[in-house]
Amino acid sequence: MKEFFNVADIATVLGMAVDFPTVATEKIALDEALGRVLVVDFQAEDDLPGFDRSTMDGYAVCATSTYGAGESNPAYLTVTGTIGMGQTPAMTVSAGQAARISTGGMLPPGADSVVMIEHTAPIDEQTIEVYRSVAPGQNVVAKDEDAAKGEILLRAGTRLRAQEIGLLAACGVATVAVFMPPAVGIISSGDEVVPIDAVPRSGQVRDVNSYTLAAQVRRCGARVRTYGIVGDRFDDLLATSQRALAENDMVLVSGGSSVGTRDLTVEVLAALPQSRILVHGVSISPGKPTILAQCAGKAFWGLPGHVTSAMVVFMVLVRPFISHVGGCTSDVPVCVPARLTRNVASAQGRVDYVRVRLVVKDGQPWAEPIMGASGLIRTMVAADGLVAIHMNSEGVEQGDSVDVMLFA
Amino acid sequence: MKEFFNVADIATVLGMAVDFPTVATEKIALDEALGRVLVVDFQAEDDLPGFDRSTMDGYAVCATSTYGAGESNPAYLTVTGTIGMGQTPAMTVSAGQAARISTGGMLPPGADSVVMIEHTAPIDEQTIEVYRSVAPGQNVVAKDEDAAKGEILLRAGTRLRAQEIGLLAACGVATVAVFMPPAVGIISSGDEVVPIDAVPRSGQVRDVNSYTLAAQVRRCGARVRTYGIVGDRFDDLLATSQRALAENDMVLVSGGSSVGTRDLTVEVLAALPQSRILVHGVSISPGKPTILAQCAGKAFWGLPGHVTSAMVVFMVLVRPFISHVGGCTSDVPVCVPARLTRNVASAQGRVDYVRVRLVVKDGQPWAEPIMGASGLIRTMVAADGLVAIHMNSEGVEQGDSVDVMLFA
Repeated sequence: MKEFFNVADIATVLGMAVDFPTVATEKIALDEALGRVLVVDFQAEDDLPGFDRSTMDGYAVCATSTYGAGESNPAYLTVTGTIGMGQTPAMTVSAGQAARISTGGMLPPGADSVVMIEHTAPIDEQTIEVYRSVAPGQNVVAKDEDAAKGEILLRAGTRLRAQEIGLLAACGVATVAVFMPPAVGIISSGDEVVPIDAVPRSGQVRDVNSYTLAAQVRRCGARVRTYGIVGDRFDDLLATSQRALAENDMVLVSGGSSVGTRDLTVEVLAALPQSRILVHGVSISPGKPTILAQCAGKAFWGLPGHVTSAMVVFMVLVRPFISHVGGCTSDVPVCVPARLTRNVASAQGRVDYVRVRLVVKDGQPWAEPIMGASGLIRTMVAADGLVAIHMNSEGVEQGDSVDVMLFA
Repeated sequence: MKEFFNVADIATVLGMAVDFPTVATEKIALDEALGRVLVVDFQAEDDLPGFDRSTMDGYAVCATSTYGAGESNPAYLTVTGTIGMGQTPAMTVSAGQAARISTGGMLPPGADSVVMIEHTAPIDEQTIEVYRSVAPGQNVVAKDEDAAKGEILLRAGTRLRAQEIGLLAACGVATVAVFMPPAVGIISSGDEVVPIDAVPRSGQVRDVNSYTLAAQVRRCGARVRTYGIVGDRFDDLLATSQRALAENDMVLVSGGSSVGTRDLTVEVLAALPQSRILVHGVSISPGKPTILAQCAGKAFWGLPGHVTSAMVVFMVLVRPFISHVGGCTSDVPVCVPARLTRNVASAQGRVDYVRVRLVVKDGQPWAEPIMGASGLIRTMVAADGLVAIHMNSEGVEQGDSVDVMLFA
């Protein structure tokens, strides 16, 4: 058991997110608010639509006037006028009466329903036949059916999709208070890392993490600042870390696939002002050598150097922190239930994340594990998502039901 | 059956997408390529990693030299040197020999595997004990394991996620040819539509569609130009439509919840140069009064005025067209299998899209239909996705298995 000594489990790490403060807020135009996060509950200022509204072209009536009406025994109603668009009706409607109304028109006092024009025929200038009965409320949207004045329509912390934007538009909201997108600084560390346009020699690898992590951060709705590659020198990593902390709400350092780089990251974290290492190793695979520190209130992550390990840790641990720091309480990973196409072995004492491809067999979704060394980015390209094999499991078997957490 | 006469089914409409040309292409920096679409197949220019690479700190050996080694009967190997980082090894390794190597180092000729340093002990300057056997290839990534020179790694039409960006970075690709994001023009039509900061009077509605459709277009990775509200006047709608067609790759006109506006859209389409109406009514609910025309090669959609109807038609019909025009062949809607919590009735002869909320009961996903008039945007806010009830079905029953197409 000694190798898991002092290693935190995933739930413990995720539980630490609440100790990090959320970012500042701003007011922006509604048409820029897609994907942004509401700062306060949104309450309806007025009833919506605000008046009883017809959903059809026809006649506003009292439903009781139509009861029993049919093709062979129509109801005869007296037309008292036409409801002009954009106007409050001047007439009232009593039993035996009807008022011409268009889609969207305001129901006159007394009327509780609308007869579709297709179910009527004119007899003379002032009289119509009605061939079908209507129920109270039929073909009408009540004045507070979309929203009642004072009702809470959206909760603080909601990330705005097209429909929430639409609801705000329907309520006449042209500007909205949202959290700033969190700014995340990304540093690649390690003497072995070279820029992507260099040809790696023996012992060298291209700086893939700066690109994958930046893409993952952007998919969370956060902003990215990259700080390039920093070699395994204490002063350099300290200086770059300090700059990144000052300029961002969170910092990710990838590297440390070798013990030397990992130790260096820990030394730098210890040297940063107001810094406290919260996590040094997580019971997750891939991704065990993950470090989390709080530096002047901000999260500072040391992520593994292997690209796939860093991506998995990002999905499982970093992303929920970005959501929290960005004020969001509505983010949940998208999961698809499926069955495994083959057995997968696993070690106890850690959560294993297996890359899988979703395939459909006999109309059912199946999760096909992608094999290959964990360092190979191609295994991520071939995959649609991750399956977690839990701490106390020795593996999962062909046909077992699993949840596939989809890549964003 | 007459009401469905001349109405196209969904598959027929979707099949028309191939008749629309794709947008132009551009070369951009890899770090701006997230969500963009590859123009041509991406082929590996070189083997990746390019040399047999150690994944551990230890000794490069011939696996056969370690066969049978164990704690009680170690193998004794002669150390012939150290492989310097960033250098091509100067030595070769024969049976009975070993070369010191670090993670990422290049294997010397003759060696086919790496013994972890933890499984060895030094005897003297030139000799080590090895306590475990290794198999050929163990702790080594082969020189073409991530990619073999000439191999097609990504197909044209792939939308780039974080991992595809990472694969391109690993291959040293700093700029990439992608399709331009399609530009989509959005027009709201109808005398009854008022700006969202106005207070609607009887017969009026706020211009919600410009906001919801813009958000949906952006979620597809396309660009938006909005043209505001145009009243029910032929000349105005014609002029705005012409401008929007000239400035964009696709145009959406929403409105036409009343017959008058719908007819006007058709008249305008007929008057546009090089215009042909392909679809006038679709067997879908909500969304039946949908119009599609091809105008000078571009798709021009007439969408329903009801916000929820327009959103559903966008998801089911417009989005696949935007994918196609944007060059993408890899977009598929994200679907979650679930079981229905209650019966839902449906009319034959059309596909009904029911809004549902996903809930978990007994660890299984269930789809709970959201009730309420289709015009209510709140029904979309409460929902996670749509369930299709097929053409020849009279409905689905509680407990039936369905696929939930998630909102983007």
